[in-house]
Amino acid sequence: MIKVGIVGGTGYTGVELLRLLVMHPDVDLQVITSRSEAGGLVSDIYPNLRGHLDIRFTEPDVELLAQCDLVFFATPNGVAMKQVPELLAKGTKVIDLAADFRIRDVKVWEKWYGQTHACPELLSEAVYGLPEINRERVKNCQLLANPGCYPTAVQLGFLPLLENNLVETKHLIADAKSGISGAGRQANVGSLFSETSGSFKAYAASGHRHLPEIKQGLNSMQSSPVGFTFVPHLLPMIRGIEATLYATLRADISSDMTLEKIQELYEERYKGEPFVDVMPLGSHPETRSVKGSNMCRIALHQQEDSDTIIVLSVIDNLVKGAAGQAVHNMNLMFGLKETAGIEQIALMP
Amino acid sequence: MIKVGIVGGTGYTGVELLRLLVMHPDVDLQVITSRSEAGGLVSDIYPNLRGHLDIRFTEPDVELLAQCDLVFFATPNGVAMKQVPELLAKGTKVIDLAADFRIRDVKVWEKWYGQTHACPELLSEAVYGLPEINRERVKNCQLLANPGCYPTAVQLGFLPLLENNLVETKHLIADAKSGISGAGRQANVGSLFSETSGSFKAYAASGHRHLPEIKQGLNSMQSSPVGFTFVPHLLPMIRGIEATLYATLRADISSDMTLEKIQELYEERYKGEPFVDVMPLGSHPETRSVKGSNMCRIALHQQEDSDTIIVLSVIDNLVKGAAGQAVHNMNLMFGLKETAGIEQIALMP
Amino acid sequence: MIKVGIVGGTGYTGVELLRLLVMHPDVDLQVITSRSEAGGLVSDIYPNLRGHLDIRFTEPDVELLAQCDLVFFATPNGVAMKQVPELLAKGTKVIDLAADFRIRDVKVWEKWYGQTHACPELLSEAVYGLPEINRERVKNCQLLANPGCYPTAVQLGFLPLLENNLVETKHLIADAKSGISGAGRQANVGSLFSETSGSFKAYAASGHRHLPEIKQGLNSMQSSPVGFTFVPHLLPMIRGIEATLYATLRADISSDMTLEKIQELYEERYKGEPFVDVMPLGSHPETRSVKGSNMCRIALHQQEDSDTIIVLSVIDNLVKGAAGQAVHNMNLMFGLKETAGIEQIALMP
Amino acid sequence: MIKVGIVGGTGYTGVELLRLLVMHPDVDLQVITSRSEAGGLVSDIYPNLRGHLDIRFTEPDVELLAQCDLVFFATPNGVAMKQVPELLAKGTKVIDLAADFRIRDVKVWEKWYGQTHACPELLSEAVYGLPEINRERVKNCQLLANPGCYPTAVQLGFLPLLENNLVETKHLIADAKSGISGAGRQANVGSLFSETSGSFKAYAASGHRHLPEIKQGLNSMQSSPVGFTFVPHLLPMIRGIEATLYATLRADISSDMTLEKIQELYEERYKGEPFVDVMPLGSHPETRSVKGSNMCRIALHQQEDSDTIIVLSVIDNLVKGAAGQAVHNMNLMFGLKETAGIEQIALMP
Repeated sequence: MIKVGIVGGTGYTGVELLRLLVMHPDVDLQVITSRSEAGGLVSDIYPNLRGHLDIRFTEPDVELLAQCDLVFFATPNGVAMKQVPELLAKGTKVIDLAADFRIRDVKVWEKWYGQTHACPELLSEAVYGLPEINRERVKNCQLLANPGCYPTAVQLGFLPLLENNLVETKHLIADAKSGISGAGRQANVGSLFSETSGSFKAYAASGHRHLPEIKQGLNSMQSSPVGFTFVPHLLPMIRGIEATLYATLRADISSDMTLEKIQELYEERYKGEPFVDVMPLGSHPETRSVKGSNMCRIALHQQEDSDTIIVLSVIDNLVKGAAGQAVHNMNLMFGLKETAGIEQIALMP
Repeated sequence: MIKVGIVGGTGYTGVELLRLLVMHPDVDLQVITSRSEAGGLVSDIYPNLRGHLDIRFTEPDVELLAQCDLVFFATPNGVAMKQVPELLAKGTKVIDLAADFRIRDVKVWEKWYGQTHACPELLSEAVYGLPEINRERVKNCQLLANPGCYPTAVQLGFLPLLENNLVETKHLIADAKSGISGAGRQANVGSLFSETSGSFKAYAASGHRHLPEIKQGLNSMQSSPVGFTFVPHLLPMIRGIEATLYATLRADISSDMTLEKIQELYEERYKGEPFVDVMPLGSHPETRSVKGSNMCRIALHQQEDSDTIIVLSVIDNLVKGAAGQAVHNMNLMFGLKETAGIEQIALMP
Repeated sequence: MIKVGIVGGTGYTGVELLRLLVMHPDVDLQVITSRSEAGGLVSDIYPNLRGHLDIRFTEPDVELLAQCDLVFFATPNGVAMKQVPELLAKGTKVIDLAADFRIRDVKVWEKWYGQTHACPELLSEAVYGLPEINRERVKNCQLLANPGCYPTAVQLGFLPLLENNLVETKHLIADAKSGISGAGRQANVGSLFSETSGSFKAYAASGHRHLPEIKQGLNSMQSSPVGFTFVPHLLPMIRGIEATLYATLRADISSDMTLEKIQELYEERYKGEPFVDVMPLGSHPETRSVKGSNMCRIALHQQEDSDTIIVLSVIDNLVKGAAGQAVHNMNLMFGLKETAGIEQIALMP
Repeated sequence: MIKVGIVGGTGYTGVELLRLLVMHPDVDLQVITSRSEAGGLVSDIYPNLRGHLDIRFTEPDVELLAQCDLVFFATPNGVAMKQVPELLAKGTKVIDLAADFRIRDVKVWEKWYGQTHACPELLSEAVYGLPEINRERVKNCQLLANPGCYPTAVQLGFLPLLENNLVETKHLIADAKSGISGAGRQANVGSLFSETSGSFKAYAASGHRHLPEIKQGLNSMQSSPVGFTFVPHLLPMIRGIEATLYATLRADISSDMTLEKIQELYEERYKGEPFVDVMPLGSHPETRSVKGSNMCRIALHQQEDSDTIIVLSVIDNLVKGAAGQAVHNMNLMFGLKETAGIEQIALMP
C-alpha cells in the first residue's frame, strides 16, 4: 500500500482525486490538508463520500506530508512550488496538478502566471506527465507535472499528425470548449448558475495560460516551431472538454495522404494505450461518453475538396484532464497496474 | 460466475445495468437482446462502453436466455409477463425491472396498466425487491419484482414513521420530483431538451401508476389503510429523484415525540443497511450526492409550532431506483457479497 | 412620463426592472444607483441592454432620488427601511422589492430577518402589493411592499380555496420549487453552476423567511388561524417557481364539493385579472410558459377517493415574483394602463 | 395592417414567429396552417400564447393563404417550393424560412438537400434576406429566402474582413456551436434531454448543409473563390449560436494592419445597422446577451505574434437566425419601420 497525502482537497480536482483514491486497491489515504476547512469532515463538504471516507481535513504540515510516499498538490497555481523542494528533499514523491512545473522556460512561466518562480531549478527535473508521450520518464521521476486539461485534449489530438510530419505547422488551430468545473470551486460571479446556464461564450480569446503549455508540447513533437491559435470557450455543463483541431495537410503530400491513411496512423500510434480511443472514421465523440472516466476519445474528419484535417478530441477535464491522469501517473511512478483505480465506465446517460 | 442475460438492453435502465454488471466481479454477461438493434454492437449505442464490452445485441430467444442463471427484464411494462413463466419453468431466475409483478392485486394492476395480466398466478409468488423490507424473502425467491423509482424513495422515507405508528395515516403526502431519464429513451416530443430544459412542472397529478404501488407498500408497513396523495414532477436534469414527504404526528403522542427521538428511530431502523444513509438532523440531501450510486439519503425536518414531520429522501432513479437495486437483489438471490458491483461513489460535481 | 429611480440596480431583480422599464411607454428612467458599480455603464454588466440603455450607475444620493416620482428599491433586506422615510417625507413614492415592509408585526419581522427595524411606524402604512387582493389600496398608496416570489405563487394558488372557506386550515402545505436566480447575484459557492446543475434539493426545510409572509397572507383570507407548512426547493434552472399546494376539503362539504365546482370558483375569482390564468381542469402548468412574462398560471387536481385538493401554481420569480409585479403596482399607483410594459409573451422554447 | 399567413406553425421557428407577430403593431395574423394540428388551438401547444392569441390551426389551403399580403413558410425543406409559385402568381409575397430558395445553383441545392427542386426558375428571382448585405433588394422583392442560422452568424462575422480584402481566402474556418432548438421540434432520440444535457459534441463535421450556403455568401463578398471549413457543434442549451471564426491576414498587409484598424472597419461597416453590435476590442459576446433578441454581437481578437484574426459572433438562432430576421425582412418588404416588432431586449439572466 502506498501512503498518500493530498494538499488542497477542497477543490474539484481534490474531490475527484478522493473519489478515485478511495476505491484504489493500492492506496492508503493518510492526510488531506485544507487551511480553510481544517478540522472538518471531508464528507461534510462532499456528501458523496459519506460512508466511504471518514477522514478530516488537517492544517498543512510538511512533517506529516513527508511521511507519505506520495503527495498530490491540488492547489492553486503557485502553492506547490513553495513546498515541493522540502518534500523532495525528504524523499517524498510529488505530483502537482497545478501549473507550477509544466513550463520548462521559467521566463515564459513567470510571464503567463504573473509571479516569480520559487524553485526554477526544478523545472528541468520535473517530468510532464502525459503518459502517451512520456511513459518511461514518468516511471522514473520524483516530481511530476500533471498536464492541464486543455493541453491533454489538444496534444493527444495533434500528436500523430505532428509526429508523422503530415501538416503545415504554421497555422495550427484549437477551438476548445470546457465545462464550468474547470473554473474551480471559487465563489466567482462568473461561475454562478444564473450567469452561465443556457449560455455560451469564448473567453481569454486573446491569450490563455494553456497556450504556452500546448505550444511547448506541439514543438516537442516535431522540429519546426509551430504557429498555434487557441481559443477556449465555456460550456453550460459541469464536466467535459471537447477540442476541435484544424490543420492543413502539407501541400507536397496532400494529394496522396487520404484520411483513411491518417486514421491508420492514429490507430497505430494509440494501439495499446489504455486511455486513448481512436473512434471509427466519421464518428463524433461526445463528452458524455467519457464523463467520470479517464478515456480520451478521438475522431478524424475531412470535408470535400479540402486539405484541412479536422480532429475531434474529448476528455473529462476532471479525470483525464486532471485527477485521473494524476492517478495514472502515480500508477506508473510506483510500478502499479497501469489502470488500477481508473477503469470506471462513463456515466451515461 | 453467474451467467446473466438481459432482455431489452437499449433503454436507460438497460445501459445502467450494463455499466454495473460489466464491472461486477461475479457476473458473466452472456446475452443482451434487443429486437430493434439485433446485430449491432452495444457500444455503438452507448459509446461509454467502448473498450469495456464487446458484445452485440441479439434477437430475443428464450432457449438462449434459459441457459442463463438469471435474466433481467429491462423492458416496457407488459413484456416480461409473457416470457417469465417459460423461463421460471426452465429453472432460470428472473428480475423484472418493469411493473409486471409489483402489484399483488391483479385487478388493481390491470386498471392502472390498461392490459390483461398474462400470468396472474405468479403475482403472489413474486417477491417485491426492496431489500430493506424484504431481505430474507429476496434471498430465496425465483421471481423478483424490482420496485419502481418513486416507490423506492417514498417507501424508504416513510418506513420508520409507519412501522413505529407515529403518524396519522389518513393524509400522507409525497411530493416527488424526478430527472427526465425516468421517462426512458423513447423519442417523445415531451422529453426533448428544448421542451424540458430550464422548465419544471408537475405531471400525472390526478393519478400516477406508482400511486397504487406505493399505497400497497405503505399499507403493508402498518395496520390501518392509508390515505395517500402522490404528485410527481419533472426536473430539468437527467438523473435523480427527490421526494419530500409530509405526515402529521398522531395527536396523542405529538407533545412527547420530539424530532430527535424520531431521528434516533430512523438511525436505528437503517443501521447496518449499506444503501440507506440517515443524514444528521437539519440536512438537505442533494440528488447529486447519489448520482451514479446506489445510496438513498434521508433527512428529517419539523417547522416551529408544527405537528407535521417532513422527510427528505433522495436516490438516483437509474441506480437505487432501478438497475442498482436490481443488482443488489441479484447479490442477495445468489448469495454474493451484498454490495458487490454497486459500491461506486457518486460523481460530484 | 413618470420620473423613476432605482436603488440597487446590479442584482437580478434590478436588471429585470431595467428590462421592463426601458420599454415602458410612460417611464423616464432617471437614476440607477449602485455603490459598487458607480461610474460604470449599466450595459457593461448587462450587455443585453447595449443599445437600449446608455445610463451609468451613480452613488446613492437621496437628493437625486427625491427628484423622482417613484423610487424602486431592489436592494438586500434592511437597506430600504433606512432611506424610505426621508423619500416619503419629500413626497416621493416608493416600491420596495425586498422584505422590509411586508410583515405587519414588527416582532415577527425582526425575528425572521435578524435585525432591528428602522421604521416600524411605517409597517401599518405600507400596502402589500398583491394586486389581485389589494388593488384598490395599491392605487392609493405611497409606500408599497412588493410581495416575495414564493408568497406570490402560493397565495394566488390558495386564495379562492380560503376565501370560499372550502378547506381545513390546520394542515395547509406548500411544496415550492424555485430557479436559482432567486438566490441573487451574490458570489456564493452554493449558487455555482457546478454545485447546482444536474441536482435538486430542498433547503430551509425547517423554516424559511417566506413562511411568516405567506402565513400572514393566508390568515387574512379567512377567519381561523392557519397551520401552514412550507418547504422550498432549489431547481437546476434560472427562472421560474412552481408551487404544489395541498389542502383537505372540509369534511362537512367534501361529498358535495366537486373539483368542477372549485374550478368554477377559481375562474370566477380571477375573471378579468390580467395576470392570473386559470387553466382547464387536468392541466399541468410549466414554468417555461411564464418565462419572462408577468403571468401566474394555475391548475387544479384531485386524486381518486381523495379529499385532498391539489393546486399547481407557476410564475417567473423575477417577473410576477418581483420586477413585473412591481411594475404592475407602479401602473396602479400612477393611474397608468394596468398592463403597460408588462405584456411580454413568455419565451418558449 | 398587413394580412399575414403562416404555413407550418407548430415548429420552433413557427412559434417564435407567432411570439413576434402577435405583438407587431402592423400585422394582422389571419391564418396558421398545420396538417397535423388542424382544428386545435395554437395556445394548446404553446401555452405561452394563452391570452395573447385565440386562433386555431387550419388545414393548408392555397386560396386562403393567397388572401394574405404575405405568407411565411416555417416548414421543413422542400415544402415551400411546391406552393410558392401559385402564391406568387396570385400576388402574395412569400418569405421562406427554410432552405428552398437560398442556393442559387440548383445542382448544388439538389446535391445537398437530396431532392429535385420544384421551381428552379425562381432561384434567381429570390432575394437572400441578409438585410446587412441586401437591404435594397429585399425592399423590392416578392420572394425572400430567409438565411440559415449558422450562415447568418458566420457571414456577418466575416463580412468586413472579406469586403476589405484583408485575409487569405484559402483557409477560412468557422467553428460554430448551436443550441438544440436548431434541431427542431421533431421527436428524435438524439434531441432528447437525456441524450444532450451535460454533453457536447461536433456533428456533421464532414459536411453540413449550411456549408454551401455560407460559401456562396463568402464568395459574393469578394472576388477569389474561398476555401472554407465549417464544423457545427451541439450545445446543451436551447437557444443561441456562437461562431468562432479564424482567418489569416494577407502576408503583404499583416505588418501594417493592426487589430485596432480592423475594429474601426467593423464599426464603420455596421454603423447604423440596428441589429449588429460591434463590441469593444477584447469583448467576449455571450449567447445569453441576445436570447430572445434580434441582435448579432461581434468581437475581434488576435493573439500575440499571430497573424490569425479571430472573430466571435453570437445570435439567437430562433430570432436573428430565423423568425426575427424574417420579420426584419417583412418590415423592409412592406416599408414598415425597420425595427417594428423586433426591439425586444434579451432575457438575462
